[in-house]
Amino acid sequence: MADTKIFFDNASTTKVDPRVLEDMIPYFSQHYGNPSSLHDFGDAAHGALDNARNQVASLINADDEEIYFTSCGTESNNLALWGLTRAAKKKSRHIITSVIEHQSIINPLKDIRKEGWEITHIGVDSNGSVNPDLIKKAITDDTVLISIMHANNEVGTIQNINEISEIAKQNEILFHSDGVATAGVIPVDIGELGVDAYSFSSQQMYGPKGAAALYLKKGVRLKPSLLGGIQERGRRAGTENIPAIVGFGRACEIAKDELDKNAKHVSSIRDKLVEGIIRNIDKVKLNGHPIRRIPGSAHISFEFIEGESILLMLNMEGIFTASGSSCASQALKSSYVLVEMGLSTTMAQGSISFSLGKYNTGDEVDRTICVLPPIIERLRKMSPLFKE
Amino acid sequence: MADTKIFFDNASTTKVDPRVLEDMIPYFSQHYGNPSSLHDFGDAAHGALDNARNQVASLINADDEEIYFTSCGTESNNLALWGLTRAAKKKSRHIITSVIEHQSIINPLKDIRKEGWEITHIGVDSNGSVNPDLIKKAITDDTVLISIMHANNEVGTIQNINEISEIAKQNEILFHSDGVATAGVIPVDIGELGVDAYSFSSQQMYGPKGAAALYLKKGVRLKPSLLGGIQERGRRAGTENIPAIVGFGRACEIAKDELDKNAKHVSSIRDKLVEGIIRNIDKVKLNGHPIRRIPGSAHISFEFIEGESILLMLNMEGIFTASGSSCASQALKSSYVLVEMGLSTTMAQGSISFSLGKYNTGDEVDRTICVLPPIIERLRKMSPLFKE
Repeated sequence: MADTKIFFDNASTTKVDPRVLEDMIPYFSQHYGNPSSLHDFGDAAHGALDNARNQVASLINADDEEIYFTSCGTESNNLALWGLTRAAKKKSRHIITSVIEHQSIINPLKDIRKEGWEITHIGVDSNGSVNPDLIKKAITDDTVLISIMHANNEVGTIQNINEISEIAKQNEILFHSDGVATAGVIPVDIGELGVDAYSFSSQQMYGPKGAAALYLKKGVRLKPSLLGGIQERGRRAGTENIPAIVGFGRACEIAKDELDKNAKHVSSIRDKLVEGIIRNIDKVKLNGHPIRRIPGSAHISFEFIEGESILLMLNMEGIFTASGSSCASQALKSSYVLVEMGLSTTMAQGSISFSLGKYNTGDEVDRTICVLPPIIERLRKMSPLFKE
Repeated sequence: MADTKIFFDNASTTKVDPRVLEDMIPYFSQHYGNPSSLHDFGDAAHGALDNARNQVASLINADDEEIYFTSCGTESNNLALWGLTRAAKKKSRHIITSVIEHQSIINPLKDIRKEGWEITHIGVDSNGSVNPDLIKKAITDDTVLISIMHANNEVGTIQNINEISEIAKQNEILFHSDGVATAGVIPVDIGELGVDAYSFSSQQMYGPKGAAALYLKKGVRLKPSLLGGIQERGRRAGTENIPAIVGFGRACEIAKDELDKNAKHVSSIRDKLVEGIIRNIDKVKLNGHPIRRIPGSAHISFEFIEGESILLMLNMEGIFTASGSSCASQALKSSYVLVEMGLSTTMAQGSISFSLGKYNTGDEVDRTICVLPPIIERLRKMSPLFKE
């Protein structure tokens, strides 16, 4: 591996902020109690759990008791879908979602469909945006739930959640949004957003893996998926992962405090990267919405060549990126998100996702802009599709 | 709180071994990659995942590819029950379990029953033992699955898993065992045990919270519960919690290496505690099997008084114990395990679980033996049930 290590794959996971890790350490071997215990030794854990719940709730301006801890974003999304549909009182069974949701939404919905639910998948435009009017039109008397992600994890496009939540409210339909790509990255006020349920995860905001949350608006009914003890007020059994939850809490606190600063920094170096690539390389296309986009996302198609090849050559230079979503990367398939946005297969396959984070620097961007053009040139020379 | 801190609640959770924590640290902020990534930065995580899987498999003498990581013991148990029943090809729907299983078995089975399965709950004798003959008799043509815990988390009784697995094999019935209380504590050779699925957890063996495993014998079909990416070969979606998994792996390695030493130490101080209590206090009863019992377990009923009161007075002395199971402790109900063992309500309610671990010492036991008799005396004097 090259000596340089430039991590442009922050959508996949992030480095744990050292301040977060520092807060976690005492909960492994010192305050290792179980918060469900009746004795004082569980008190430190119990207090830490309460404190973290408050920090997590504060990030999205929710009440503490609206936050339920889970083990990862995938679990939050699965819990929301299964939990809301199974708790639905209505006999009717129709869900509206989009074609570009994360796999942890798409795949459970396939199973929910097998249980007799009808699923409507709303398409997106070439920017990856869901048109709220299409959701409105898809609503039937049977619609129980809408699930639309806040921002797409691959191309970064932010959806018009406010407008969708208005539609949901007018029709008395539950609205869940997958906020894994947005919480801690852009401002989220859950009341303003108007959703009934919202998933978000620690590992995408410089917190540890192993903790995530499902926000559930007061009064919304949810059938739990994991059954056992009465942890999380009966919504999620299993001993709470206190060190990870403590880290998640601190990560939320830091994210909130430094959100503006980080967003400015990340979007400025991201813009520099995009401009540099466009200026120095022909036949490239920035994917996703040009403006309504999360700060770190730079998803670019390079015509005539394979994204995998670019990824591997950048990798040899110590620059780490993704092609498609990280969850799907090992499947080596063309990204369904890009296909749904109308990109041709060749453009979709020639794409790279640079996802920048708060630890990235302008120098790293400069190095990438310097290294990338000769890589693209070399690959294009080898490509049977490319003619100069 | 008293200056002394004696943690006799190791069945609830354990202190993370400092060697385990040390191994975990680099995976938070240094090798924080996602093992699903295609670039080299995910390699360290990927290698760590493979290594941990090998360490975990080795503990129970399984093959690496028979280990699936989950987030906690509760998830492993839920996954086993839902996954095995949903994947069952047979049209028949009958499960055999015991009356003293952990809540993460009992509660999902209530839901599985609602889906049309018949559940037979086998009773236990006064030692908390399941008689394999009763299982044999309960088998019908419709039986698909048997789930019997390896050892009970409250009273420590070890079940005759070998005999039950023989019965299961003869009748071509799947056999799952909850090994949360046993793996890392007593020798477990999964081949000798003869089970098809086995749940075990990191936090009960001086590993971190946030990691557990489901052993699944090669060829056994399981429908996943968490759907999304293709992690854990499609059996459990969600980014792997690498630091916790690394810690779990190391905890398994240490547990294996030091199993004999720890078992000897823990059972010797446990026996000392039990003898000291019996010698110094009248009208006490050791619950659970006198011999077939996990090393750390000392579950004792004190006649005429409330376990909660003993727990709280021990707590004031800095001695931390449990009454009933930790998961149920906040529910303040009499332990169903004790009731099923035939203890009278007053005996069941007057019981305390001392669960000792490798960090406990003979001095801690001496202190407890010294402190406990006057507590019991005081409480009995206050008790309307007690007559000298």
